[in-house]
Amino acid sequence: MKEFLGQDFLLDSEPARRLYHDYAEGQPIVDYHCHLDPRQIAEDMRYQNITEVWLGGDHYKWRAMRACGVPEEDIACRFEDPFRTFRRWSETLPRCVGNPLYHWTYMELKNYFGIREELNAQSARRIYDACGERLAQPEMSVRGIIERSGVRVLCTTDDPADTLEWHRQLREDASFSTKVLPAFRPDKALNIDKEGFAPYLCRLGESADIEITSFSKLIQALERRVDFFEANGCRVSDHALEYAMYRPAGVTRLDAILHKALRGERVDAEEAEAFRTAVLLELAGFYRRYGWAMQLHFGCLRGVNTRCTERFGPDTGFDAVSNAHGTDALGALMDAMDRRGALPKMILYSLNQHDNEAIASLAGCFQSDGVCPGQIQLGSAWWYNDSKTGMEKQLTDLGNIGVLGTFIGMLTDSRSFLSYARHEYFRRILCGWIGRMVENGELHPNFSSLGELVADVSYRNAVRYFGFDC
Amino acid sequence: MKEFLGQDFLLDSEPARRLYHDYAEGQPIVDYHCHLDPRQIAEDMRYQNITEVWLGGDHYKWRAMRACGVPEEDIACRFEDPFRTFRRWSETLPRCVGNPLYHWTYMELKNYFGIREELNAQSARRIYDACGERLAQPEMSVRGIIERSGVRVLCTTDDPADTLEWHRQLREDASFSTKVLPAFRPDKALNIDKEGFAPYLCRLGESADIEITSFSKLIQALERRVDFFEANGCRVSDHALEYAMYRPAGVTRLDAILHKALRGERVDAEEAEAFRTAVLLELAGFYRRYGWAMQLHFGCLRGVNTRCTERFGPDTGFDAVSNAHGTDALGALMDAMDRRGALPKMILYSLNQHDNEAIASLAGCFQSDGVCPGQIQLGSAWWYNDSKTGMEKQLTDLGNIGVLGTFIGMLTDSRSFLSYARHEYFRRILCGWIGRMVENGELHPNFSSLGELVADVSYRNAVRYFGFDC
Amino acid sequence: MKEFLGQDFLLDSEPARRLYHDYAEGQPIVDYHCHLDPRQIAEDMRYQNITEVWLGGDHYKWRAMRACGVPEEDIACRFEDPFRTFRRWSETLPRCVGNPLYHWTYMELKNYFGIREELNAQSARRIYDACGERLAQPEMSVRGIIERSGVRVLCTTDDPADTLEWHRQLREDASFSTKVLPAFRPDKALNIDKEGFAPYLCRLGESADIEITSFSKLIQALERRVDFFEANGCRVSDHALEYAMYRPAGVTRLDAILHKALRGERVDAEEAEAFRTAVLLELAGFYRRYGWAMQLHFGCLRGVNTRCTERFGPDTGFDAVSNAHGTDALGALMDAMDRRGALPKMILYSLNQHDNEAIASLAGCFQSDGVCPGQIQLGSAWWYNDSKTGMEKQLTDLGNIGVLGTFIGMLTDSRSFLSYARHEYFRRILCGWIGRMVENGELHPNFSSLGELVADVSYRNAVRYFGFDC
Repeated sequence: MKEFLGQDFLLDSEPARRLYHDYAEGQPIVDYHCHLDPRQIAEDMRYQNITEVWLGGDHYKWRAMRACGVPEEDIACRFEDPFRTFRRWSETLPRCVGNPLYHWTYMELKNYFGIREELNAQSARRIYDACGERLAQPEMSVRGIIERSGVRVLCTTDDPADTLEWHRQLREDASFSTKVLPAFRPDKALNIDKEGFAPYLCRLGESADIEITSFSKLIQALERRVDFFEANGCRVSDHALEYAMYRPAGVTRLDAILHKALRGERVDAEEAEAFRTAVLLELAGFYRRYGWAMQLHFGCLRGVNTRCTERFGPDTGFDAVSNAHGTDALGALMDAMDRRGALPKMILYSLNQHDNEAIASLAGCFQSDGVCPGQIQLGSAWWYNDSKTGMEKQLTDLGNIGVLGTFIGMLTDSRSFLSYARHEYFRRILCGWIGRMVENGELHPNFSSLGELVADVSYRNAVRYFGFDC
Repeated sequence: MKEFLGQDFLLDSEPARRLYHDYAEGQPIVDYHCHLDPRQIAEDMRYQNITEVWLGGDHYKWRAMRACGVPEEDIACRFEDPFRTFRRWSETLPRCVGNPLYHWTYMELKNYFGIREELNAQSARRIYDACGERLAQPEMSVRGIIERSGVRVLCTTDDPADTLEWHRQLREDASFSTKVLPAFRPDKALNIDKEGFAPYLCRLGESADIEITSFSKLIQALERRVDFFEANGCRVSDHALEYAMYRPAGVTRLDAILHKALRGERVDAEEAEAFRTAVLLELAGFYRRYGWAMQLHFGCLRGVNTRCTERFGPDTGFDAVSNAHGTDALGALMDAMDRRGALPKMILYSLNQHDNEAIASLAGCFQSDGVCPGQIQLGSAWWYNDSKTGMEKQLTDLGNIGVLGTFIGMLTDSRSFLSYARHEYFRRILCGWIGRMVENGELHPNFSSLGELVADVSYRNAVRYFGFDC
Repeated sequence: MKEFLGQDFLLDSEPARRLYHDYAEGQPIVDYHCHLDPRQIAEDMRYQNITEVWLGGDHYKWRAMRACGVPEEDIACRFEDPFRTFRRWSETLPRCVGNPLYHWTYMELKNYFGIREELNAQSARRIYDACGERLAQPEMSVRGIIERSGVRVLCTTDDPADTLEWHRQLREDASFSTKVLPAFRPDKALNIDKEGFAPYLCRLGESADIEITSFSKLIQALERRVDFFEANGCRVSDHALEYAMYRPAGVTRLDAILHKALRGERVDAEEAEAFRTAVLLELAGFYRRYGWAMQLHFGCLRGVNTRCTERFGPDTGFDAVSNAHGTDALGALMDAMDRRGALPKMILYSLNQHDNEAIASLAGCFQSDGVCPGQIQLGSAWWYNDSKTGMEKQLTDLGNIGVLGTFIGMLTDSRSFLSYARHEYFRRILCGWIGRMVENGELHPNFSSLGELVADVSYRNAVRYFGFDC
């Protein structure tokens, strides 16, 4: 029986251990996609207690607690009575056998708090207190955590209308070595069928100094904001779609659809698809121009429990994997981008892991544009797929159908500053997966070549792909 | 090379062996879903020969035989010339490498007949005779088999119009310790687009003492039968749908659809969907009131070979896995139940195992209702998925996306009284799966905590979930 | 650490080694589906260099190179400057960890060239030259390669209008022992919605000596060509569909659709589906009559990158896995064939491996026709699925839901004469997969029975299934 979470955790062969310890472990981190708050970094925020870090906003953990019958009030009290929520989490964790929360929790306890003890109802108080003490130490501020995690670049997620003031402040602050760059996420400008669209366009228009009265004005406004983000170091955009789509439409129809929405009328599903298709095509062109990567996240049913979504708001644990399987339409969308010379670098993520093969095969159809190696990426295992088996499936699917050596690797996708342990998790899984093949005589045991590949996937490919200066 | 079907069958690590032998092996069985005949139990039926047990109604085996080119007459003669059919099965079995039939067959031979010999054309006669002798022994009656299998509760599958007389008789029979409870399966009342609907509504109306002339009368009749089943100890319902759906409709439209069907006119697909949606919503409310669990089975093409279905009837081996992937609609249906305060405990099974992740994620969106831990369950691997790899996938998917510790575990879903070996099969796979993680250093080696979980998933969660008194 | 590509490559247990070396390794090859050119065989073509063999037409390798950023001109120069393309390939290969190209490349180097060295930028020149020398040896002509690979039968892929002259010439040539048979691939006669349909019907009509002026004339022409192929030893047909479909239509409508297309008008998607359905049903009857197998390949988006497809033509690496999931319609199509007594032997391949379970379960619904064991086959892992994990998934899915012992096994599906190494790859994976179960005590260790099964799946089932005389 191997030691739990020992130094060779997930490294079940000698080649795996060698690849990890010699080539992966020491690599810095590029975190090209997360949901961290630039203001908290700029202000070098501190946490009061471990509940705040772990249970302040992490809906993965809330979902697990609800599944175990924990009442909502024990989650809701997390700021007023943090230990009560933490105790509930400590009771939940031992039931989460096979869930990535289990590994993340123990890796974070070990890496950031030096705690190896099991977390359960008995140890909850002790661990809560020990974490609290540790969080009070100077080096455990937000910046301290980021720097000791080895993060070289960190891309936040930002609205086009954002002033990026915190990013500017961070750029000018020589005391902090990690680059904090904005990422362009114009979801609100695409969600023509959601509440708040018209007021948002006003805000967007103001930020771009353009009155948005037509489709072309909207595109102009977005272009100005892309320019502004580019001037602020942005290298990547992000789009959340329920499903991928392709519904071409002419500008007259697009204007009509937009005017309908601006008048406050309901836009139907086909109109919304036509509008989204058109905006995505235009944005792709801007991204291409600046060499940005375009992230598409799809295959997700958002707010499927409407009662709880109304009660708790978005991103509180009521989203599900969709079975829409829109990759055929995605292919048509990419083809349309390509035909107009506007196919940017793309990173494609479906919440339904059964789309992996289709996405990997589509990616391979659009690599011939000479933009860069691995121009179109099968994104790393996202959200519900971000488990050991999900990551192994992503590596397997990409390995089978694409070229693993071009993969830009892991991201954090997290609202917690401790989540950098996920990069270690990914690298161990990557090295375990490759090492197993070497051990079994399925790969030439050329460690310098394989080590290069491991270092590339862990860190260097992302630096090159996004063009970060580090 | 490990001994075939030895005492550590499927237990490939020391932790697995410990978990199985110390915590799982001795647990009783709750069989909350099967297709056994309550009359056969009440009358304590006996089998004449092994062909009757194995090949009397098991279409899994017929399918395997047909795939090997066995002519239909060799299956049809199973009651007249039972050894001929058995011999054909004995020739088929060695070809079924990788099929769960292989393991089920040998586990049943070992557990109930003490036979370890290989079954093939050479041994067929010897094994047939030995099984026949054993079946003639007193303890091998139906009740004997159930009791020695450790079954505490057994839920049959019953039509709402059923009198439940055999259940009553069993309840009053102190000589038999296993509880035999009815389960409510109102498929015929939902199949408005199938033949026999109008006559069935007459029968249902008579059983409820209500003339069904409108949608609300239908619902009243169903409610009375739910009350009657509740009074007879029922704790669970079951619905077979080709695909999950959500098509809301008002009562005027529902009445019109129902009248059409009662007049004997054809109801189209949309009308049938609207009708089914409405009945499911109403029934969910009744189930919720009584704390029953609502089972939904979907993702199945029934009778896809129409010639053979006409010739042999339903459930004779001509059903297939569907690719309808209706889980997005399922989410909308559950949300509608929740909004009307009528979301019951639910157990969701798709015949397409690629729906697992979507179902597990949907389940997690509807756990916050305070009904009980694990209110919404990803059902155990069903039918074509009920294999070693299928069960491991279900555990992996549930572990990744849900909380394994709340799982209510295995059922039998069987028409044969020997199928209780499947619970042993499941428990070995469960312990093998968890034990492997402990062995590899992926779980804290806390055997008392893991043992609790194993015992819960094997038996105790189901008792608590359904509220059985045992 | 096991030796890379040693004699026990992929055989990770003693039972696996025994099954492979004793029962699989020595079996001849039936290659019932490939894209080799009968003329090249008839003329006993020779290759000038390894680039021609490997990179002349293999779009799998081109895709990998493009993903690594290799510019198109380095691929385009493959005939003018073959080493330049080869060097690019040698740089690409080490990045292809987890890709079947890696194993295929090294197996071919070992088996045909005796080369065990790693291929990379450093060794490229040396290996290129060594391969060139070897290709110049007399036994390395196309026929030499086929014979030393142990190929007994080889089915090419041929248009119905083909004269089959090269097949005739080969049949009459006593100096070559491998049977080279035609396969009937009438895609052009079904592609009523593609360019070139009307001119093709002229060509087809001429070959059949029938003027195709109506649907029934088309069917007559096809029937004559089926007769002609039958007279030339054909045993198998093949159809490439984007997705499986079933849309019944009467002859008046079919005539109208056909006339529309013959007039050069655009046929819409529904019309094309109705037309294809009808032609498939008629052809199935002819195939059934002669005992041919009908191959259906579906689940593929062809030419999804239109710019590159226009530039490079079809089959140049711009096709993707589709998410159409048409297996429900496939079931209806098969049922229609069965109802008219026209269900032939069928081999079903989806490019989307998540269709496997649905296909395997459908196959089991249509085995009862008494035609032959395993009448309906889940085809071997196709194209993007033709990897170690893809083949293991196909074996697992077939094993779980069907009967492995009836499987007709591997094909080559290749445009390269060196691809016969894929049969060895498949057999090693098969034996590894079965051997692991024996090793783990999951199968009776009856090696003669398991060896029979292995030999059947490797070779003998295909001979019997197609009715080859060898």
